[in-house]
Amino acid sequence: MNQERTPLFDQLKKHASQHPISFHVPGHKYGELLSYGEIEYFKDILKLDATELGGLDDLHSPEGVILEAQRLLANLYGVSTSYFLVNGSTAGNLAMIMAAAEENDTVLVQRNCHKSILNGISLAKANPVFLAPEYNQDWGVAGGVSLETVKEAIEQYPHAKALILTYPNYYGMVFDLEQIIKHAHQYGIPVLVDEAHGAHFIGGKCFPASAVQLQADIVIQSAHKTLPAMTMGAYLHFNSKLVNEEKLSSYLGILQSSSPSYPIMASLDMARAYLASFSDKDADKLCEKVESFRNALSTIKGIKVLPYDNNIGDPLKVTIQSITSLSGFELQQILEQHGIYAEMADPYNVLLVFPLLKTYMDYPVDRVVSCLEEGIKIYLHTEDQKKKMIFSKKPVSELVLNQKKREGLIIKPVPLADAVGRVCAQEVTPYPPGSPLLFPGEPIHKEDIQNIRILKEAGARFQNEENIKQGTIKIYE
Amino acid sequence: MNQERTPLFDQLKKHASQHPISFHVPGHKYGELLSYGEIEYFKDILKLDATELGGLDDLHSPEGVILEAQRLLANLYGVSTSYFLVNGSTAGNLAMIMAAAEENDTVLVQRNCHKSILNGISLAKANPVFLAPEYNQDWGVAGGVSLETVKEAIEQYPHAKALILTYPNYYGMVFDLEQIIKHAHQYGIPVLVDEAHGAHFIGGKCFPASAVQLQADIVIQSAHKTLPAMTMGAYLHFNSKLVNEEKLSSYLGILQSSSPSYPIMASLDMARAYLASFSDKDADKLCEKVESFRNALSTIKGIKVLPYDNNIGDPLKVTIQSITSLSGFELQQILEQHGIYAEMADPYNVLLVFPLLKTYMDYPVDRVVSCLEEGIKIYLHTEDQKKKMIFSKKPVSELVLNQKKREGLIIKPVPLADAVGRVCAQEVTPYPPGSPLLFPGEPIHKEDIQNIRILKEAGARFQNEENIKQGTIKIYE
Ligand SMILES: Cc1ncc(COP(=O)(O)O)c(C=O)c1O
Ligand SMILES: Cc1ncc(COP(=O)(O)O)c(C=O)c1O
Repeated sequence: MNQERTPLFDQLKKHASQHPISFHVPGHKYGELLSYGEIEYFKDILKLDATELGGLDDLHSPEGVILEAQRLLANLYGVSTSYFLVNGSTAGNLAMIMAAAEENDTVLVQRNCHKSILNGISLAKANPVFLAPEYNQDWGVAGGVSLETVKEAIEQYPHAKALILTYPNYYGMVFDLEQIIKHAHQYGIPVLVDEAHGAHFIGGKCFPASAVQLQADIVIQSAHKTLPAMTMGAYLHFNSKLVNEEKLSSYLGILQSSSPSYPIMASLDMARAYLASFSDKDADKLCEKVESFRNALSTIKGIKVLPYDNNIGDPLKVTIQSITSLSGFELQQILEQHGIYAEMADPYNVLLVFPLLKTYMDYPVDRVVSCLEEGIKIYLHTEDQKKKMIFSKKPVSELVLNQKKREGLIIKPVPLADAVGRVCAQEVTPYPPGSPLLFPGEPIHKEDIQNIRILKEAGARFQNEENIKQGTIKIYE
Repeated sequence: MNQERTPLFDQLKKHASQHPISFHVPGHKYGELLSYGEIEYFKDILKLDATELGGLDDLHSPEGVILEAQRLLANLYGVSTSYFLVNGSTAGNLAMIMAAAEENDTVLVQRNCHKSILNGISLAKANPVFLAPEYNQDWGVAGGVSLETVKEAIEQYPHAKALILTYPNYYGMVFDLEQIIKHAHQYGIPVLVDEAHGAHFIGGKCFPASAVQLQADIVIQSAHKTLPAMTMGAYLHFNSKLVNEEKLSSYLGILQSSSPSYPIMASLDMARAYLASFSDKDADKLCEKVESFRNALSTIKGIKVLPYDNNIGDPLKVTIQSITSLSGFELQQILEQHGIYAEMADPYNVLLVFPLLKTYMDYPVDRVVSCLEEGIKIYLHTEDQKKKMIFSKKPVSELVLNQKKREGLIIKPVPLADAVGRVCAQEVTPYPPGSPLLFPGEPIHKEDIQNIRILKEAGARFQNEENIKQGTIKIYE
């Protein structure tokens, strides 16, 4: 297949070039209703913001240019079918879980997952069994699950309907997915992988292997995160004999707008072509650039760089810490004051995502180095007193109260200090990165409360949970 | 409130004007990774395609510019809370139903609704009771439900958890929503309205009243359909004491990407400001323009225009038919050959959506008239032999097999001719407009099969159902 082609984008351009007269939605009429101040940003894109007209195909029942674009995508990743997603990896995560599991089915799920994974389990009304990740004490970051944990879980739950993993984690860390997939497949358990942060992994040898290459059954990728696609554009790759594809595609039809955005879809087409044209030379050159960026950062006094090698993870994720009193959040502030925006900060780290540059492209990395060098100076005499989170979750654990049992129970907030030993009635999710500490239906341990306190003190925020800020946690009476 | 402001759009522009250096998602880095051919369309918009950085707020937990923009929206529509939706009315429809109904709850639902309504019911595992719409025989179009039908339904199901209506229908037709809402509220039943095609109704007296003004509990609007917003941009208005808003907003958080598109959200901000600045004079002038367009169309030999008055519906929807042998689809073809794209065609009609023009804006309506005049000439001697659909659904009807009972049953396709009297096992949805003829779990009547044949002969398509095309229908054994 000629991977240089962009069938959907080309057809949209062709449609636009004919200056069609619109008596249809969308209401902006290819931008004609815009006023002066808006034109600057929106005018050009709205020429592509079309709808399911003749020749432009239909995402929910593709037979033309969208099907062609999806086939090019499947071809590039080497899978049987690929789908464009316009509602982010969120929609893909929900759909894959709902396709694999039904009410009361058991699913094995890595604890440190994105909330869309948990939402998928709860929409399916399946029963989650949590697999605890390995924890990197030095960096204060939860990584991947071990093969041992997976083996233990499958031994206890051999009839689980899915093993749901997150690979890589937010910080780019990977783990031994290949052996895990092989093991699960021996038991006929499909492996569903949230690879939101790894769409570029097939782009070169210096990247970790993609879950797609390691024979996962379904892989979800936020194309918008690491490829040049518009936000909300994502991919789903299907490569399974264990999951019903018809059910999957029906859930995708349910969970995504019946008017999917053509600009987003066109950008998915372009992003695939970009990745296809990304050569081994581009990859090597890029990894060199990042390596020298890492080296430059390491020379800064007071800054530590998360050591990187192929086993650890994605070279494009550069994680730094300060060994002064500065928290990750404060370090991020220093960068922002100079117009440099990091992907995220946690109490310890700042995470920078390096762009997928081709050989001829440049990026102002020097400014990061000089800005940190300057900014950190006055803190060099201060001491690192950051408290580390305590990690003590059991490798394999079920909820004490599943969804069904929780229905109708009375919920009340209690002070954090009084919550140990009770059953949690809310999700407790510090963000970023947004991986839950506690799930509804889980017992609350002393360490959980300590971790909440450590995170609060360090300035972390909690998603949609005003009450945590105020020092209470919801429990079942 | 100063409705001229666009707080979210302004903040994005401000952020862009500072030429931020991105070490975060999205991967296009404000467009820097684009190649030459793409720049033309995408470059400017990608400057606004940001992520949840400081100052840019968070749709899923708004406290800053997004909250402000949503408040301006609520203020304009006069409701207690409004939400930006980035996954279309689809996400709004799903969320409102899941917030109002739980497993085994009964909901009353207008038959001719969008499939997202049915999907919402099925995700909630609620039991639908269908209300048949009035049918306009002459135009072959299903309209709204009558007050009588609603009364009958509530009498039979006084404990229904929601009344779910579609107002206006695809063709802009409205009905006596005010009395219906009053009646339902007497029984404490919340009224959820899919007003996908009516976001502009508050824009002037020549439009029908909006469901928002008629005190509906929740109203969903595809801002992208009739306002100048980007596709997938929609609004949800909440104004209820009967529905739990916390549950609603939690489902919105589940069903929409955790990386909502800033360009779409900014366009929702702009579209609200556009509507706010749309004056009574603009509305009157626009309605005059449409009226003279209608008149000009009526003078064309062989063309009939759906008569319009305030009671029928939205003046911006102009529906035409040919009284020659030409079907709606063929009439649409004639227009397309001249670069004029209609909203949709069905076997009988072509639907044109007129833009929400301000007084100073022009639109090439003359080309529609001259193109039709020319194109229809050679058909003027032909006879109109189009068969009309038969409409015979009971005013109020339940499924014979609800979702729970259908689980595990064996499904098989049978020839259309053999299906009468059996229970349908698939959704049969001709499109456009995409309102289902038959639902899974419904008995198949002779008229249903006749209608499927009439539609097939007339060239209608059926959503995702290859087997209908091949002359079979799926039933439960
Ligand atoms: C690991 C992971 N999975 C899934 C998602 C959801 O993806 P999206 O934002 O594309 O909907 C995210 C987004 O932050 C994520 O980090
Ligand atoms: C009546 C109706 N409701 C809901 C929808 C779904 O809206 P959206 O396409 O914005 O997701 C549509 C779209 O066609 C519609 O016509």
